[in-house]
Amino acid sequence: MKRSVFFISDGTGITVENLGQSLLTQFEGLEFEKITLPYINTPQKGMEALERINAVAAQASQPPIVFSTLVNMEISGIVATCNGLFLDFFKTFLVPLEKELQTKSSHHVGRMHSMANYDTYMSRINAVNYTLSHDDGVSTKHYDEADIIIIGVSRCGKTPTCLYLALQFGIFAANYPFTEEDISHLELPPSLAAHREKLFGLTIEGQRLQAIRHERRPNSRYASLAQCQLEIKQVEKLFQTEKIPYLNSTFHSIEEIATTVLAMRGIKRRLN
Amino acid sequence: MKRSVFFISDGTGITVENLGQSLLTQFEGLEFEKITLPYINTPQKGMEALERINAVAAQASQPPIVFSTLVNMEISGIVATCNGLFLDFFKTFLVPLEKELQTKSSHHVGRMHSMANYDTYMSRINAVNYTLSHDDGVSTKHYDEADIIIIGVSRCGKTPTCLYLALQFGIFAANYPFTEEDISHLELPPSLAAHREKLFGLTIEGQRLQAIRHERRPNSRYASLAQCQLEIKQVEKLFQTEKIPYLNSTFHSIEEIATTVLAMRGIKRRLN
Repeated sequence: MKRSVFFISDGTGITVENLGQSLLTQFEGLEFEKITLPYINTPQKGMEALERINAVAAQASQPPIVFSTLVNMEISGIVATCNGLFLDFFKTFLVPLEKELQTKSSHHVGRMHSMANYDTYMSRINAVNYTLSHDDGVSTKHYDEADIIIIGVSRCGKTPTCLYLALQFGIFAANYPFTEEDISHLELPPSLAAHREKLFGLTIEGQRLQAIRHERRPNSRYASLAQCQLEIKQVEKLFQTEKIPYLNSTFHSIEEIATTVLAMRGIKRRLN
Repeated sequence: MKRSVFFISDGTGITVENLGQSLLTQFEGLEFEKITLPYINTPQKGMEALERINAVAAQASQPPIVFSTLVNMEISGIVATCNGLFLDFFKTFLVPLEKELQTKSSHHVGRMHSMANYDTYMSRINAVNYTLSHDDGVSTKHYDEADIIIIGVSRCGKTPTCLYLALQFGIFAANYPFTEEDISHLELPPSLAAHREKLFGLTIEGQRLQAIRHERRPNSRYASLAQCQLEIKQVEKLFQTEKIPYLNSTFHSIEEIATTVLAMRGIKRRLN
């Protein structure tokens, strides 16, 4: 029977999930049944969460693990009485922070992912709009407004990387694909050459690319290993000749690719 | 002078930023100079991070605050010696977890956002592809594959919500806009009525919508307050008549809208 794990938050639950998950990945071979309880922002909901945890605890052979970023002391005090291991990410660090900052914390709930202000919201929306309208080379105008232009062969991970950069960091991220037709005499098109300092290359292993393309167009030439390897070889040569920084996306998550792009190009996150 | 804050991680830094930021938002009125140091994954890089923190500390009137999710004990031990308040999100909780799980943790670096496996990666990519090809009503085919279909007037936040759902949770999220032309006799088109149980409405305040539309098409009828209010009124009436759950996006972040949609529709996250 898998051990039950609860992620409890008065907000979206995204932060407590992330930190809790990264702790659990340290225990290799163990499997967990994960339940997120977001928006536990009243004592009443705290009671309901408590009952839910205790119901699981009563059925299980091992006590559940409860990760919490509950900010409100009353609510957190209720859930803390549960029959499980209660790990409080917030309270643990607020005490030393209050001491160091010589300020009492406000204990207001749900501040992290709530909309701080209109400007922040619009920054994200504008970045998403920019990225969508400069996806896949559909428009090469307005590259002057881009923070980054990701280039590479079809299906190497450009689009999700750009969308992540826009949503998470407010980055204006364009992307441009090299197509089958470009490959035989590959060179930087003038629209890209004019913004050389914004270019970042993605590459990928041949077999991985083949698998991804095969899901899209099964048994096509486009998805053949030979074609994939040819395109990758040519594109990597271009990156090297033109001294464009690049990353092999094969063994990286979207988060890793996005943050590596920022780090290697020295781009500051627009949202903070 | 703003207090300096470092977010240090052996991986992307996203988790440590999220938790650190949410702790800092509890101290209203204080401002911070935030620096993220990702991929601190060797003792050498740990030394460099230490020097960077100490250089800031030497210049500042107040010691910096250092939030860490460093997993490797050697690296974390190096950075912990800095002249600042070192808050270790990892070590603090690994000890009670190891005891409860009766297992030693592996202390492997960068596991959280590294690509766990090909299937997880493909789930996200497929969700992003689905969402892009079902954005803004461009295609109403394959709604049978959707996990959720977000509906609302133009510019109320449908697209970023859907993209976030796809990237963060692997959700197949379509969206469909009601246009100016639809508004006079608003009804559910057959393509939506056939999937009533997947519909979720977004609404927004008139003045906010006006401001957002004004950035897109300044001084147009589309961006007039009267037109915005008319569209919103009609759409909210439709949501009520058709008993479609809905949320006012005005005072919520994209994260909040996305997680509320999942909670209200009882949809399980596909990535976990």
